[in-house]
Amino acid sequence: MTTVGILGGGQLARMLALSGAPLGLRFLVLDSAPDACAAQFAPMLQADYRDQAALASFADQVDVATFDFENVPAESAEWLAARVPVFPSPRALAVAQDRMAEKSLFRELGIPVPEFAAVDSREGLAAALAKVGTPCILKTRRLGYDGKGQFRIKSPADADAAWEALGAQAATVGLILEGFVAFQRELSVVAARGRDGELRAWPLTENWHESGILAASLAPAQADDALQAQALAAARKVAEALDYVGVFALELFLRDGVLLANEMAPRVHNSGHWTIEGAETSQFENHLRAVLGLPLGSTRAVGHSVMLNWIGAMPAALPVLSEAGGHWHDYGKSSREGRKVGHATLRADSTAELADALERVGRALGREAQVAPVITRLR
Amino acid sequence: MTTVGILGGGQLARMLALSGAPLGLRFLVLDSAPDACAAQFAPMLQADYRDQAALASFADQVDVATFDFENVPAESAEWLAARVPVFPSPRALAVAQDRMAEKSLFRELGIPVPEFAAVDSREGLAAALAKVGTPCILKTRRLGYDGKGQFRIKSPADADAAWEALGAQAATVGLILEGFVAFQRELSVVAARGRDGELRAWPLTENWHESGILAASLAPAQADDALQAQALAAARKVAEALDYVGVFALELFLRDGVLLANEMAPRVHNSGHWTIEGAETSQFENHLRAVLGLPLGSTRAVGHSVMLNWIGAMPAALPVLSEAGGHWHDYGKSSREGRKVGHATLRADSTAELADALERVGRALGREAQVAPVITRLR
Repeated sequence: MTTVGILGGGQLARMLALSGAPLGLRFLVLDSAPDACAAQFAPMLQADYRDQAALASFADQVDVATFDFENVPAESAEWLAARVPVFPSPRALAVAQDRMAEKSLFRELGIPVPEFAAVDSREGLAAALAKVGTPCILKTRRLGYDGKGQFRIKSPADADAAWEALGAQAATVGLILEGFVAFQRELSVVAARGRDGELRAWPLTENWHESGILAASLAPAQADDALQAQALAAARKVAEALDYVGVFALELFLRDGVLLANEMAPRVHNSGHWTIEGAETSQFENHLRAVLGLPLGSTRAVGHSVMLNWIGAMPAALPVLSEAGGHWHDYGKSSREGRKVGHATLRADSTAELADALERVGRALGREAQVAPVITRLR
Repeated sequence: MTTVGILGGGQLARMLALSGAPLGLRFLVLDSAPDACAAQFAPMLQADYRDQAALASFADQVDVATFDFENVPAESAEWLAARVPVFPSPRALAVAQDRMAEKSLFRELGIPVPEFAAVDSREGLAAALAKVGTPCILKTRRLGYDGKGQFRIKSPADADAAWEALGAQAATVGLILEGFVAFQRELSVVAARGRDGELRAWPLTENWHESGILAASLAPAQADDALQAQALAAARKVAEALDYVGVFALELFLRDGVLLANEMAPRVHNSGHWTIEGAETSQFENHLRAVLGLPLGSTRAVGHSVMLNWIGAMPAALPVLSEAGGHWHDYGKSSREGRKVGHATLRADSTAELADALERVGRALGREAQVAPVITRLR
């Protein structure tokens, strides 16, 4: 009997546990929240990630550990890795936790990236602005997600307001200034790398965001072989440089035929949720296979899929359940503004059928705006 | 938040809970075994099905109840149904629990059945033999499953031995004599019926048994439209007669183009496990949708699937995990002779690819005999 420990007990841990059950695995989740939604389907240890007694108990009970949450303190990950195998490694986690380290790595590896510069002070911001140019975005180096910890700078005159908003964090989580990319499309490549170094990527996914949070994903993205190859090559370089084990996502901007790497997520990723129904093997199962040293499953797409995120509160399920290829995912969370509480996946054999289904669902739920750009792409 | 109660905590309850999690459901399982495998992923109340205090606590905690096990005492099901909605109904359960009631219903509905007669005594057995003829099978009316409680009678001279083996049970669970059907193929139709009476059936499945236990299933079965229609008509008649709600399976013998009804299972069924990966909606999800009054999902097959049962102990997972369409299901049970401990599903876009995968897996696991008849059918 193999027990997989997961640091973080949100929807990613929940879907990992659900997808790992058929492999005969047991799970133990560590989370500080008493109502972490993974605990509805897996045993949970409720404690802070820095609680060493809890970490010790966790280490005693699991055969291997992984993450649902990339912002687990690096020291905790390292402490744990000294006691039990941890995948991805604390080093890979540390790089992915820091936008500066991450982008520097991309650049070293020859992967195109938007302009960027570290910002340590108000004067540093001025220097960075001169280097990066406007428009640009001031971001925290660490602990930002879903558009949090970001300030958009349209012209140098916005620098004071940006510093006012985020300057205090220069000394804590650090700041980075990133050039704004006038991209044509946002894409992501989700890939799994095994303990033996084998890498398998799912087809490129196109993503649409609203207020910095993923709203919809289309997979396979409409991308030619050259673009697929460009994305796969970037993913492979990053994974090999970090000796990465498990599933990760590389978020990309497409600008004039070139893919620029925006950031990597060292875990299963929201833009890979469609793989549950839309691929031969889901990102969740392949993450577990990778972490356990099992052969990776096929990442082939089965038909065409669109994933719609539900933010804040769950909409009515009926319109999705009434679709032939409609699949519902309610994470069992309470409602809260800006919170990811569930998603739906629509799957069809053809893009035309998929567009039709999407149109019906969008209309029935009053979410025409969420589905419109995907329908435009499909038609 | 909706909680579904499941009487019985075996692999069927486990797969129900895993498939219901994405619908935002919670589960509570009732089972007398401390190590019931569903409890690894759902809260469990450990108690006897006749324990009224436990049933009362169960009823208090669930919004609707269903079964993983059809031999729950009818009185317990009725007691529960007076307190909470129970699907399928205790009446449907009672009919399906009794081979005599079940076969009588099939006959009343005009569904072809093998010859049969009730047996109450040694003299009754002689009379039944005269009516049914040999070869035939003496079976317990209730509580038999996977070939248990059965005695094969080749000629009238075997009657004494049959009575010796099973006669004592005439007064307890009752006996039935069934004519032996020299069938060409064993098939099953798995269908879901909603609270609103809508019925959806998955494509016919062909099954192969070893020692009375399901060994392999192929879906869709190679069957023409007429045969599919015959099976669907029989399933519909039975479900409507019982005002059945939920998933059920009708086991059928094919003899000279005619389908004879063997028995019905008032629950999700082993011959429907392939639907997890091989159909747009699994039998587990559709059972929950039916029980909750939600619209039923599409029962369309996605490609071709073979399900292989693992009996007694799990074989090595590697050969299956190495196949592009290989899916592993370990129920988290300990090994025991004759026990269903897991299954694998192989899925492919074509029957030729499926036969090749099956051949590789059969050879790698030394289970050529288990896969051989399926390969023969596919080629």
